[in-house]
Parts: sequence; C-alpha cells; structure tokens
Amino acid sequence: MTLSMTENEITLAIIQSLKDGKKSIFLDIIEELQPYDIAQQYLHIPSKHRNKFLLYLPLEELTEFIQEIEREDQLLVLEKLGIEKSTKVLDLMENDNLATLLTDLEPEKIEELLSEMNQAESQVVQNLMTYEPETAGRIMNNRYVWIPKHYTVREAVDKLKHFAELAEYLNYLYVIDDEKKLIGVISYKDLLLSELLDKIEDIMYSRVVKVDVHTDQEEVAKLISRYDFITLPVIEEDGRLVGVITVDDIIDVVIQEANEDIEKLSASGKSIDFTTKPFVAAYRRLPWLVLLLFIGLVSGSIIDRFSATLEQVVALAFFMPMIAGMTGNTGTQSLAVVVRGLVSNDLDIKQVIKLVFRELWVGIIIGVTCAVMIALIAFVWQGNIVLGLVVGSSLLITLIIGTLAGTIIPLILYKFNIDPAVASGPLITTINDILSLLIYFGIATMFITKLM
Amino acid sequence: MTLSMTENEITLAIIQSLKDGKKSIFLDIIEELQPYDIAQQYLHIPSKHRNKFLLYLPLEELTEFIQEIEREDQLLVLEKLGIEKSTKVLDLMENDNLATLLTDLEPEKIEELLSEMNQAESQVVQNLMTYEPETAGRIMNNRYVWIPKHYTVREAVDKLKHFAELAEYLNYLYVIDDEKKLIGVISYKDLLLSELLDKIEDIMYSRVVKVDVHTDQEEVAKLISRYDFITLPVIEEDGRLVGVITVDDIIDVVIQEANEDIEKLSASGKSIDFTTKPFVAAYRRLPWLVLLLFIGLVSGSIIDRFSATLEQVVALAFFMPMIAGMTGNTGTQSLAVVVRGLVSNDLDIKQVIKLVFRELWVGIIIGVTCAVMIALIAFVWQGNIVLGLVVGSSLLITLIIGTLAGTIIPLILYKFNIDPAVASGPLITTINDILSLLIYFGIATMFITKLM
Repeated sequence: MTLSMTENEITLAIIQSLKDGKKSIFLDIIEELQPYDIAQQYLHIPSKHRNKFLLYLPLEELTEFIQEIEREDQLLVLEKLGIEKSTKVLDLMENDNLATLLTDLEPEKIEELLSEMNQAESQVVQNLMTYEPETAGRIMNNRYVWIPKHYTVREAVDKLKHFAELAEYLNYLYVIDDEKKLIGVISYKDLLLSELLDKIEDIMYSRVVKVDVHTDQEEVAKLISRYDFITLPVIEEDGRLVGVITVDDIIDVVIQEANEDIEKLSASGKSIDFTTKPFVAAYRRLPWLVLLLFIGLVSGSIIDRFSATLEQVVALAFFMPMIAGMTGNTGTQSLAVVVRGLVSNDLDIKQVIKLVFRELWVGIIIGVTCAVMIALIAFVWQGNIVLGLVVGSSLLITLIIGTLAGTIIPLILYKFNIDPAVASGPLITTINDILSLLIYFGIATMFITKLM
Repeated sequence: MTLSMTENEITLAIIQSLKDGKKSIFLDIIEELQPYDIAQQYLHIPSKHRNKFLLYLPLEELTEFIQEIEREDQLLVLEKLGIEKSTKVLDLMENDNLATLLTDLEPEKIEELLSEMNQAESQVVQNLMTYEPETAGRIMNNRYVWIPKHYTVREAVDKLKHFAELAEYLNYLYVIDDEKKLIGVISYKDLLLSELLDKIEDIMYSRVVKVDVHTDQEEVAKLISRYDFITLPVIEEDGRLVGVITVDDIIDVVIQEANEDIEKLSASGKSIDFTTKPFVAAYRRLPWLVLLLFIGLVSGSIIDRFSATLEQVVALAFFMPMIAGMTGNTGTQSLAVVVRGLVSNDLDIKQVIKLVFRELWVGIIIGVTCAVMIALIAFVWQGNIVLGLVVGSSLLITLIIGTLAGTIIPLILYKFNIDPAVASGPLITTINDILSLLIYFGIATMFITKLM
C-alpha cells in the first residue's frame, strides 16, 4: 500500500493509524519499510505518539529499528520499553551493536541491562566489550555460519538453510576443525556449483584471509576493500574462529576514520556533529586553539626580537602574512598528501625515501615559481630591488622547508605508530609560521643596510 | 601448498616455477591466491619474468588479476597480451571496471580495443561510458540476477543456480515486469525460507530502494551505508532495471569522496598520490598557492594602509600572526565540522539555522575565553593595559566572525549545489586573515592616541 506514497504521506498515515488505534493498518505500513525508514518515521512523528508506536511494533522490527537510531535515542527507547521488553530486544540485537550501545554506560546500568538477558547472549557481549575499541574484536559479530570440515556439500547447504535466519550474509561458510580452528572457507556460489556429495574439505579454499581480534579496524577496512569481501573472519591468537566482520560495518569504519583524519587535519576537535551542544563543541575545540594561541605568540616574540629591523624597514611587515601563510599552505598540502596516501598504502623505507625526495622536488619547483613572482611584485610595488630579492629568496627557502616539514613530520609519527594525522594542519601551519618568520627576518637583517 | 608460506616465499616459488618453465607448479600456487595477491606478486617479480607470468595465467585469473592493478599497469599488460588475448580479457572484465579503464583513452585506442570485442559486451560498455563520471550509471555493473514476477520460488532458485557464475553477489534477486521495469526484490535468504511453490510476486518486497542512473555516487554511498545493502539496483528514467551497484565499489567511492574532501580542505590539489611525478604534483598544487599568494598580498596592503599605526606602535606587530592565525584556525575548525557533517546528513533550512546559531555560540564562548587570556598576556608582556584591551577585543570579534565565516560560506556553497569543501581550508584561512587584520588595525587606530 505504501508503494506510491511519499515519506510525508507515510508519516501522516502512521500518525492516523496510531490515533485511531488501528494496529493492523500500522503493521501493513511498517511491513513495507526498511529498518532505517522505520527509524526515520519514529523520529518524525510527534513524541506523544511514540509510546504507541513502540507498543505496536513487533519485537523483530523493534530490534532492527533500534539499531538504526543514535545511541542517546536508543537509551530513551529502552527506557520507554521497560526492562522486560527491552531485555527481549537486547537478546535479539546484533552483539557488536549491543556492545557499542553499552560502551561508556555506568557499570550499574550495564549490569541492569545485561542481568535480565539470555545468559549466553550477555556472555558474548561482555566478551566483546573486553576488546579494545576500534579493533576487530570489538566490531565483529557472531551472525555467521560455520561447518566442520568432514561435511559434504549437501550437509553444508542444509545447515546453511537452517541458519539462514541467523546469518547476516550467506556469501561465505567458514570451515573449522575439531578445535574450532578456522581451516577453510567456501563461498555459497561454490556450493551451488559443486556436486552435492563433494566433501567440503576437498573443495574449500584453505588460504583464508583472516584477521586477529586485536587488528586495528583501519587495517580490517584495508583488507575488505582490497579483497572485495562481504565478511572477513576473526580469529583468536590460537586460531579459533570467534566472529566475522561484515562489510556494512566497514563502510561506517571507513567514514569514521576519514572523519577522524579531517578532524585532526583541521584540529576541529573530537566528534563534533550537527547535534553537538555549543558548550561541548567549544570545549572540544578550545584545547587546540589555546595551544595554537601560545605557539602564535612565539611568532610574535620572534617579530619582537627583530623589531629593530622592522622599525627600520616597515615595508618588511607587508610581506610577513604572505610568507607565513604560503609556508603554512604548502605544509598542509604535503601533510594531506601523506595522510591520504597512508589510507590505502603501506610504506616501506624505500618508498619513504622516494616520497621525501619527491616532495623535496615539489618544494623546489613551487619555491622557484613563487619566489620569482613575488620578487618581481615586491620590486615593482616598493621600487626596491634588494627588498625583492630578500622577499623572494626567503619565500624560496621557506617553501622548500615548509613542504619537507609537512612531509617528514607525519612520516616520523607514522614510523612510531602514531596516527600521522595528529600532526594537524594548524599545527604544521603554525610551526611553519615560526620557521618562515625566522628565515625571513634572518635574511632581512643580513641585508638591512642595503634595504634602507 | 602455499598455506604455510609467507608472501616472499611465494614470490620466490613463483619466480622459480617461471624460470624452470614448470607451469603446473605455477598454477598450483596461483590457485590458492586472491586476485589482489596475484596482482601484488606480478608487480613484485622482476619484469623479465612477467611475460611468462601472463602467458601461464589462465584467462579467468588473468581477468580478475587485471582488475586489481592500476590503470597504467592495466594498459601495459594489455599491450603485452596482444590484441587477441586482451580482447578475450576485456570480454570477461566487469564492464564498470572496463569503462573506468577506457576513460580518457584516445578514441582510436578505445575503438581498437572495443572493435574486436563481443558485440553485446562492447555495446554495454559504450553505453556505460555515455553516463557522467561519478554517477550511478557509470559505476553500475550488470552482474545481477533478475526474474520475471510470475516465477515460483523453485524457478527462481533454478535461475539463480544457473547464473551463479555470472552474478557478483547472490544476496538479492530483482523482480521485473514485462517491460523490464523493476517492481520488486527478494533476498536469497527469503527464498531459502519460503515454500518452493510460492509465487515470487506474493513474497517479494515491492517498495524497492533504487537509484536513477544519474544519481551522484556520493548519494548512492549514503543509501548503501544507511540500508546495509550489498547491491543497489539502478533504473533508467522509465523505470527499466539497467544495473546494480555493489558494496565493494561503494567502499572505493567512500574513500575517494573522503580524499576529495581532504584534498579541498587542504587545497592539496587533485589526486596526488605517492606515485605522482614531482612536476605533476607541483603543477597541481601551484594554482592554489599562487591564488593564495595574491590573497596574502592583500593582507600585506592592509598592513601597508595601517603602516602609520604600525610605525607608532610596533608592538602591534607582535600580535598580528597570533590573531590572524587564530581566526584562520577557528574558521577551519567550523569548515571541517560542516563538510564532515554533510557526509551523512541532509540539511533542511531548520537545521541550517540551528547549526549557524550553534556555531555563533561556539564562537562567542571560544572568543571570550581566548580574548581574556590574550588581554592579560598582552598587558603583562607589554605593560600596556590599552594594548591588552585592543588585542583582546580584536581577538574576540575576529574569532566570532571567523567561526561564522567557516560555517556560513560552505553552507551557502552547499545551498547552491557546489561541493562545500571547495571553500578549502587555506581559502577560509586567508579570508579570515584579511578580516582579522582589518578589525585588529581598525580598533588599534581608534585607540592609537591611548596606545602610545
């Protein structure tokens, strides 16, 4: 029935059905909606109708729906549901999502939520939560199908059918030995294309691409995007299969990691989104700004030190912002290239050296180009050839150094397993500010007599 | 056999097998490798062995392998293969990958490659290439299974088995009417869980989430990550099903779009990676830098205009870099928050207003905090209370304006369907530089008598 309806029409129909207490109509509408859409509808209807909305929603849809909304909303919904119904929901929830939901809740709250849950389920979740955030162990789930190696294709297919409900994706079956060690994988496609009596052992693919529970989620994302997998198996140190990571979670990881890079490149502070409250946002942004304020003062004190030079040739001040700005810009450019490159490449020393020399060349080319331009401009503008040469040569040197700084600093951080994006844009910019002022005024002071 | 071997051992084994001309051994090794790994091996072995490597590689593996390497390498390999074999490969290639390969080749080259190909195949590819880059039509492929609505579950399963080879993922079957219009979808899971004699029409899901061929790939990524789909159907204006977009391609899209945002936020120039040649990289980075150089000179001319003020109170120069820098930093922070937020949110006017006021508050909070700090520092450092007040009040105003500029400029661009990230970090920074200098010296000039 919803087929031809727009989102708004659906919203109205839902509200109507809730007002009239027509559960059957409500269910007809819901049935045709994706969990994400159901979540959107819930958030769009007036809050006075939400309790009934939750009351009418069948347990399964309720569970899928709750996994589509923000964490804060999830907690509100669970409150509304009451302990008994919410326990049922938690039992059905994918345990990676449940683990995320529980993260950073007060222990008592977690206790309360888990206590009522199905013992096995809550055990699984508690295990998940023992892994570091942003590792494979934390984002894996247990909705996969495993088969013992002695199975035939027929047995495998039967088990698959039997577990179809449970498994998130049916694309791969994982083959384990008697100690539940992962020894092979077979795609559902291969099953379809083999004889029913073939032994799994003989047709399975035994060089399995897998990750350890402690693998960083960024590494996992790299593997999944390289191999175009739908799911990637996760094993314990002893090789036991303990879960799978699904591609849908990996897309979220990729977006999250990209956002973190941008956050750091722009020093915009941890996870500020459109709904963050002003005070929280300001609080998260301030530390960076205060740090940069003090580094900025260092530039000031440099100018202070050279105030003699500056007072003699005030014209020097005209080019200060340009030189400092340009050095910062080229540094940020190099930084971005490095941070971006590391998303899909692993670097060995040979490539590092190649990269640094590449950037050196870039710095030289950029430097010469801009230096010549500015030297001419300075000369024409101020009618002082020496000034032109001072400004030009300063810009040449600062651009080369700035480019290298933007390349080498993040690479060093990477070498020491620190996220290179920590060398945030503004930080590099400010460091380059300081370098450029020292060089600029240094050169100017050398030629001060000729400048006047 | 490769099970226990490291990558390097495998490389050595491959080289050995090629040297000895032991094709069977070579194939045993290859068989256990993923296409991506085969590609890595090809790139790692000395180039003198590559011809034999290609010669030994069976057509199917060859095709999968070629889709894993960079475009330049792909063209080299096709050269080596010769027209006849490469045509066979092109026939087998996924046509979205083929389209990408052919993009920006000289027409004659495309002609040559397509001419020998299977007529139908080459037709499909040429159609793909008529769509705008970065749209659904361009990244879709035709490796999906469709069924007419009158099919029973049994017929559907049979067709699925029959097309298992062809389809990239078997998760969904798409249901079409007599005009090939997309009218429903059914997941393979649902098939497994239904009766063999059920009619597809009765059990299919008819509110299909689909995209139009012209949809922007970023929009497609949003949908796939919201709904956790493996494939998303693509339709023509008339509703005909013409292809599917697969999640593995979407991961690449997400990474690419994130990189583009970072490129623009840092003005680091279009697609520069670790392998880009210095001159190319410099050439791509220079336009921005030159633009920013001239904008930087504007700051210079502002200082020029206020040189009288500056000469009277040189101390003003000390705080110039800090004020300009801080304004730039807060602007970049706001910019990043907006650009990042737009990745997963669609904004309506209500939210825009909310967001702008949020940022206004952030600006005020940040401004007051930093202004008080710097006022005290300036007073203590220079022992001049008026200077402290001038610097402090300037910073307060510039931080508020800078924050708003970083928010409003990208939002306006977004409103006019220009990618908000175009308002690149350095651009915002430089604009804020100029604003801050005007405000700073403006205020200083007002109080010049008291400053001296």
